[in-house]
Amino acid sequence: MDDVSAAAARIGPYVHRTPVATSATLDAQLEASIFFKLESQQKIGAFKARGALNAVLQLDEPAAARGVVTHSSGNHGQALAYAAAIRGLDCTVVVPDDAPDVKVAAMRGYGAKIVLCSQADRVAAMERVRAETGATLVHPYNDVAVIAGQGTAARELVEQIAGLDVVVAPIGGGGLMSGTVVTVRSQLPEARIVGAEPEQVDDAARSLESGVIQPATGKPTLADGLRTSLGDLTFDILAAGKVEVVTVTEQAIVAAARFHLFRMKHLVEPSGATGLAAVRELGAEVAGKRVGVIVSGGNTDLAWLD
Amino acid sequence: MDDVSAAAARIGPYVHRTPVATSATLDAQLEASIFFKLESQQKIGAFKARGALNAVLQLDEPAAARGVVTHSSGNHGQALAYAAAIRGLDCTVVVPDDAPDVKVAAMRGYGAKIVLCSQADRVAAMERVRAETGATLVHPYNDVAVIAGQGTAARELVEQIAGLDVVVAPIGGGGLMSGTVVTVRSQLPEARIVGAEPEQVDDAARSLESGVIQPATGKPTLADGLRTSLGDLTFDILAAGKVEVVTVTEQAIVAAARFHLFRMKHLVEPSGATGLAAVRELGAEVAGKRVGVIVSGGNTDLAWLD
Repeated sequence: MDDVSAAAARIGPYVHRTPVATSATLDAQLEASIFFKLESQQKIGAFKARGALNAVLQLDEPAAARGVVTHSSGNHGQALAYAAAIRGLDCTVVVPDDAPDVKVAAMRGYGAKIVLCSQADRVAAMERVRAETGATLVHPYNDVAVIAGQGTAARELVEQIAGLDVVVAPIGGGGLMSGTVVTVRSQLPEARIVGAEPEQVDDAARSLESGVIQPATGKPTLADGLRTSLGDLTFDILAAGKVEVVTVTEQAIVAAARFHLFRMKHLVEPSGATGLAAVRELGAEVAGKRVGVIVSGGNTDLAWLD
Repeated sequence: MDDVSAAAARIGPYVHRTPVATSATLDAQLEASIFFKLESQQKIGAFKARGALNAVLQLDEPAAARGVVTHSSGNHGQALAYAAAIRGLDCTVVVPDDAPDVKVAAMRGYGAKIVLCSQADRVAAMERVRAETGATLVHPYNDVAVIAGQGTAARELVEQIAGLDVVVAPIGGGGLMSGTVVTVRSQLPEARIVGAEPEQVDDAARSLESGVIQPATGKPTLADGLRTSLGDLTFDILAAGKVEVVTVTEQAIVAAARFHLFRMKHLVEPSGATGLAAVRELGAEVAGKRVGVIVSGGNTDLAWLD
């Protein structure tokens, strides 16, 4: 928790203290008080800005001079490019050649160098960049500095909303949830921690049940931020933190994203909408409870709307 | 202004104090500080809840017992239905038979009686309801109580953000802008007040220029909340308040609504996006200024997105 608090101080000037939104309609339906922490309104449109900044800002000078590198087709690449631009470092993002143009353009907008490669060649391409430049790898989730940074979202939430009984966050690689576990187990030891995961890619549920990291299923899901399997670090934290996983259908994800958009007027990406979908799945279990939901991001082209 | 302050106290328990949003990207582009007052996140999804509540809550008991009536295909009908439900009054909304099902369903959801009629028969149908029931007409904009209620949005904005140089709001029938004029001329006498209007329906611009109320053009616009002409009351207030009108193209409205949605992650209806479009039209004139923009609503099916 000290690492999370240090991260909050370190990244504070460069991230938004994102707002918390509520819906009287939803609260009436569930007979509960649901609080949405809108990381969709974070810098670069997702919580990922927090972890990347925390990693970049604590590099020592010699490492900083060699720059940073990662591989990502999505929000983490944008987050690292943003963080590197703030510190004025070189940043290389290895991007699979089927990544959306708009995301690649955003990374370039922050001054990142882009190395395009095939999906299969991602890790090898990144290792070549590291070998050539000596750049530091900033892993999207299996990294203590990244995890501490992500934990600052839950830290703000528990400051903004007192007395939460349940905290919900999506699980992809487990970075956001690991940071959430650290914060919640420290600040609200009795709270239930619920991870939201697509039924299509339920590896975290199966990993925690079996006690062994399971690979991601590779099945398609609209929640494209949640396709990854856990890392050894995030798996250990989730297991120690007694995280319960609730899996949600693609239909439930779309219904939740539509509720965020048309009722609450917030653009939320499908990965970010899994939290509401999981709360609805819990149904009567949340009645009378105060539930905090971390809405992870808002970067989407709305292709799921039709 | 006393009426606006009284309205704020009267309606306070039933409306949201809506948030103010900013965009570092936009501020950098315009070299200005732009503050968006998000009435899109108001009850019923639009500022209209304010005026309708202020009118309904100050009816005397005999009038209240006879109920309220209006004609509306849009946000005002929902707002009046919401306000009547809060006070437990009968409410009848005369709705043209081409009104969107979702809006009619929302009015029914608040317990309003719906009278469907042809577009041409709206006023006559409403007069029949008044004659039969003795219900009080709550006009969507040409009404002092409604105007005072709408003025509470600007009143909150000037409380939330100090030192505004410019205040921008859309103009349809002029209710929101009239309330804005009352507040801004009282609280920030030197501020510029800018009305945003679609080029396609530029009757307010022509009315203020000619000194005589001009009828709406009847041309199509995506900003469907702004198709109405001014009333005698709103015209007088806008003229006395030295409101400048900036007209914006349909393209500029869509670009602004897309910026709200994809960059700021807020769902804003085209009428509500005219404010940002007008600010962009002002361009260099807002450089170095603090600009407040009232985003009027967020009720849209996103049909304009394609």
